[in-house]
Amino acid sequence: MLNAADNELLTRTGAATPMGQLFRRFWVPVLLSQQLPEPDCPPVRVKVMGEDLVAFRDSKNRIGLIEPHCPHRGANLFFGRNEECGIRCAFHGWKFDVFGECLEMTTMPRNDGYEKARARIRLKAYPTREAGEIIWAYLGPTETMTELPAMEFMRVPPSHRFVSKKLQQCNWAQACEGALDTAHFTFLHMSIGEDDAHGVMNKSEAAASGDKDRVRWMRNDGMPRFTISEHDAGLVMGAARTADGDDLYWRISQFLMPNHALAPSTFPGENYHGQTFVPINDEACWIYCYTWNPDRPLTNAERERFHAGHTIHASVDENWVPIRNRNNDYLIDRVEQKYRSFTGIKGVSEQDACIQDSQGFIADRTREHLGPTDLGIVRFRRLMLESARSLADGQAPRAASKPDGYLVRAGGTVAHSSQPLDQVMTARFGDPVGIVREGYR
Amino acid sequence: MLNAADNELLTRTGAATPMGQLFRRFWVPVLLSQQLPEPDCPPVRVKVMGEDLVAFRDSKNRIGLIEPHCPHRGANLFFGRNEECGIRCAFHGWKFDVFGECLEMTTMPRNDGYEKARARIRLKAYPTREAGEIIWAYLGPTETMTELPAMEFMRVPPSHRFVSKKLQQCNWAQACEGALDTAHFTFLHMSIGEDDAHGVMNKSEAAASGDKDRVRWMRNDGMPRFTISEHDAGLVMGAARTADGDDLYWRISQFLMPNHALAPSTFPGENYHGQTFVPINDEACWIYCYTWNPDRPLTNAERERFHAGHTIHASVDENWVPIRNRNNDYLIDRVEQKYRSFTGIKGVSEQDACIQDSQGFIADRTREHLGPTDLGIVRFRRLMLESARSLADGQAPRAASKPDGYLVRAGGTVAHSSQPLDQVMTARFGDPVGIVREGYR
Amino acid sequence: MLNAADNELLTRTGAATPMGQLFRRFWVPVLLSQQLPEPDCPPVRVKVMGEDLVAFRDSKNRIGLIEPHCPHRGANLFFGRNEECGIRCAFHGWKFDVFGECLEMTTMPRNDGYEKARARIRLKAYPTREAGEIIWAYLGPTETMTELPAMEFMRVPPSHRFVSKKLQQCNWAQACEGALDTAHFTFLHMSIGEDDAHGVMNKSEAAASGDKDRVRWMRNDGMPRFTISEHDAGLVMGAARTADGDDLYWRISQFLMPNHALAPSTFPGENYHGQTFVPINDEACWIYCYTWNPDRPLTNAERERFHAGHTIHASVDENWVPIRNRNNDYLIDRVEQKYRSFTGIKGVSEQDACIQDSQGFIADRTREHLGPTDLGIVRFRRLMLESARSLADGQAPRAASKPDGYLVRAGGTVAHSSQPLDQVMTARFGDPVGIVREGYR
Repeated sequence: MLNAADNELLTRTGAATPMGQLFRRFWVPVLLSQQLPEPDCPPVRVKVMGEDLVAFRDSKNRIGLIEPHCPHRGANLFFGRNEECGIRCAFHGWKFDVFGECLEMTTMPRNDGYEKARARIRLKAYPTREAGEIIWAYLGPTETMTELPAMEFMRVPPSHRFVSKKLQQCNWAQACEGALDTAHFTFLHMSIGEDDAHGVMNKSEAAASGDKDRVRWMRNDGMPRFTISEHDAGLVMGAARTADGDDLYWRISQFLMPNHALAPSTFPGENYHGQTFVPINDEACWIYCYTWNPDRPLTNAERERFHAGHTIHASVDENWVPIRNRNNDYLIDRVEQKYRSFTGIKGVSEQDACIQDSQGFIADRTREHLGPTDLGIVRFRRLMLESARSLADGQAPRAASKPDGYLVRAGGTVAHSSQPLDQVMTARFGDPVGIVREGYR
Repeated sequence: MLNAADNELLTRTGAATPMGQLFRRFWVPVLLSQQLPEPDCPPVRVKVMGEDLVAFRDSKNRIGLIEPHCPHRGANLFFGRNEECGIRCAFHGWKFDVFGECLEMTTMPRNDGYEKARARIRLKAYPTREAGEIIWAYLGPTETMTELPAMEFMRVPPSHRFVSKKLQQCNWAQACEGALDTAHFTFLHMSIGEDDAHGVMNKSEAAASGDKDRVRWMRNDGMPRFTISEHDAGLVMGAARTADGDDLYWRISQFLMPNHALAPSTFPGENYHGQTFVPINDEACWIYCYTWNPDRPLTNAERERFHAGHTIHASVDENWVPIRNRNNDYLIDRVEQKYRSFTGIKGVSEQDACIQDSQGFIADRTREHLGPTDLGIVRFRRLMLESARSLADGQAPRAASKPDGYLVRAGGTVAHSSQPLDQVMTARFGDPVGIVREGYR
Repeated sequence: MLNAADNELLTRTGAATPMGQLFRRFWVPVLLSQQLPEPDCPPVRVKVMGEDLVAFRDSKNRIGLIEPHCPHRGANLFFGRNEECGIRCAFHGWKFDVFGECLEMTTMPRNDGYEKARARIRLKAYPTREAGEIIWAYLGPTETMTELPAMEFMRVPPSHRFVSKKLQQCNWAQACEGALDTAHFTFLHMSIGEDDAHGVMNKSEAAASGDKDRVRWMRNDGMPRFTISEHDAGLVMGAARTADGDDLYWRISQFLMPNHALAPSTFPGENYHGQTFVPINDEACWIYCYTWNPDRPLTNAERERFHAGHTIHASVDENWVPIRNRNNDYLIDRVEQKYRSFTGIKGVSEQDACIQDSQGFIADRTREHLGPTDLGIVRFRRLMLESARSLADGQAPRAASKPDGYLVRAGGTVAHSSQPLDQVMTARFGDPVGIVREGYR
């Protein structure tokens, strides 16, 4: 439970807000690379944390992310022509490069004052990087800009990963909390009746890895015990359920500042999953989704399955809007809900979206009643609120200056109940906070 | 004409308003019974007087009407599972009964504090009743709750009645006024030219009852003289038009507090009609419509006709939205309007909806010019405004404690012009204010 | 560039604003005549400068433009019956004439007070005129009403003109500025590559008039030199581009107060074009478009071309909404934009609409960087702002009292570079400010 002021602080990310300032110390995804598929391709509208922008890929393959209105007469550069190393306004032909510099003032006389005037004209332009099939931007102060986070999915060969995006019609924070709240798997994603393993897990993995045991453990223990520890990039969150004998079934997720969540299901050799929650405004966000396998290429069958909507990947239309969404009640099937699945909604991603959207466009955290299974989100909020407050007091977030701290994994394992989380992590990943180590899968 | 303050007072029904408080001393329809067709069927969203709620029918056939957000994490119980005597949140499985009591906190440890914590959790839940194929709710203080109003349509066998609902896209009060304003029949519902009786009246009744005379009397006298008298449940409103010889044609309607109107057309042996106007918010309402015959079952032909849209019943889609509505100008046919009907709009209900919607989402009563034919709505407003003010001063509305006062009829008759309303009523109904009496039809 | 206060002053036209007051000293188009095609035809909704009105054509062919709500009970007269010399409310039959006078209070007793009460009832009604296939209205003070502007398109025979309208989804002022800004032709409307003359000009005219030269001159000189001079009705704006040898190619437009723009392309013998920008509210406007030829009837082929969308005339649906509009990004074709046209958008009118809409619903003029080619709009703004301020100080706009000052032409010509604008005008039109003179085409 938060008071109303903290709920505002957590959820508002406009440029003038403390949380918006915190976000602007980190690189954030703004597009999939495929949305700007080649040099000089059409420009694209971007809205991120309430800012309206235009993105384009220039002749030299550089990505521009600039304010949309031409400084001459205010026409929108989205309708401009993406020409030789610059975007040209369709109204009177003024031209700008990826740095926002004005290359040509077509309607201005080339007199003595021209160059001086041209140099004064400058569009707001944000630095961009491309990695992991995603275009990232840095919207903060130039002097505090650092390297991209060293997330593993960006470091594996393209053959080893699958990247997608999906619209979510609610505030970023509740969507992110949904990914960190691993207790809900016992309910939201569960099937009803005998047919346990269907629909909720990756079936191809299930065959290979004893998935039915995991589903059984999750079904039977809805009160996982949480252990949280902080590291350079964020928080590792272990949730332990009773398994067989004296064993615990651990599902361990990672929260990486300010808006990444790595999923807790992966056993050694299986695919890893992660999501990044990027505010469009305070009532909607884009979720960037990535699945990767450090050891092998993803198969075509896996790619097809992810593309059709599977695990974190949603079934989306050509604008990355989920087919099953807030406006159509996620095509809930009440007969299915009665007899076969907890929600009657198809898709793990869609089930998450439904329940997170249903909290409201911005969840009201003043009326919650949290318990021990909510420890993950409690710690997420505390870290984010403290970091935002610290930054407002002049102290930069540590994680922003520790890009290597993001090279971590999250996943599942079974361990004897006597083992604490750091030992479980070391056994599973070779490192107590999950840093990627050679010889571990 | 009202001043702006009284117009606000009359039309606003949120929980914090005086009129909203007055409404909350009465039972109000919130759903048709068929919207919750059987035990453990899917839950349904309800919005009434600005309050968002979720309704469900439990395993014991009890109706729950509760606030929608689960107190654990705020997920919406509309997406929940309607299970054995309770609705279970789809997020983490917390479960609630029709009284809003928490039956199970699935994610909370069953330790010493569990029961105490569970007892503290309680959803706002409103009492409900089912009668007349309608689900009623009481949203007011528990200590002032009374019995359901004893309206006749709820007391006849199901075979003798037809119940429907329809959306209206304007404030409740102007819709209700439209039903009480019987003077408009001379204009709004009238046909043009020779073909008088078409389209405006129940043709099957017309054949049996001299309908053509009534249409002629209505056409010829657009200035009915009103007599109003107050009774336990509201107001009886008689409107007398010149008939043949020294006779008057009386059309007598009933307003029953706070939002019911009984229609004035019924001659002995014909079907009775009534409508109840329930605010969704201050700019839209649901109208519940009921036709009944105390003496005989309705025929299949009648049911089919009502279902297709006839008299007070509108032609609606599967969500009870009228096919001809504000958004499509009621499919007005201007050729039809020129040559055959006063409005060019098909359906008495749709004609009413058109003209009431056209006053604005909330009619501006400060610019009206009322005359003697508006006496009915003047008295309606006065009663409602006085009752709301009295309640704010601590005096409960009398009608709420007189459920038997609602067992009244409204209808038409012909009487000699020397007879005052109470004598006309006694002759027609056996009672001066229309209380249902044996031997009268 | 304007400061924020002047931007507000320029763009807001509600009745309580200074610019709204200025507009209300002039006649403004409110409908095409064809929207009220014959006596006693159906009434039509009108919204102009934020005012909601109803228009109807009565039995005597007079046009009424009245406030919509019946003074009896507030029903909307749009749903009324247009009967013998008046519109009758569909609710209770009160009837009003084109002057807003109440002809009949059907529900009021015809007693001694009737006539006095009837005379007190009066709807706001604005004077109307019909000319040039357009219905004009005067929304200002009666005592300052003058004659219709003597625009030439209204004076030629119907066979010689084509009139249309189109919705634009932005503020009136930026749409008007787009028409006065003739510099943008070098960019916005230009084709790419060799195929110069296609798509941008009237092809039938091009064949007859050396259109290819003009396109070449426009393409080669994006910095026309502006000369502006004021006259009784507004401003004549000459823009001179380098032509061949020592010649200049002049494109001369007219701004006529408060919202008319005549197009600069016409050579002697070609068709003339003009547009009038009428605020619906502050974020949308109707543009009335007129093409005329003083010397000959327009051909059927020309009419068909204008009807399909050509030059200033847009391709519109049955409600005069452009097929290519803000909501569908004007069906921009990015391949077309890359290889064949500057915008990838089909239609000169649609290209204008795109770029003007793209400035925002209300352009932010505080962030502009204007140069010499923007002199036309600078002078337009200055004239309008000064006129609005003067009116607020009690000084009526001169143009409103000079209807004959509107009988001017705009168009193009080629002249030796030594000639100043007034001499160029006199050579082209027979008059230094373009007043229509015998013997000129």
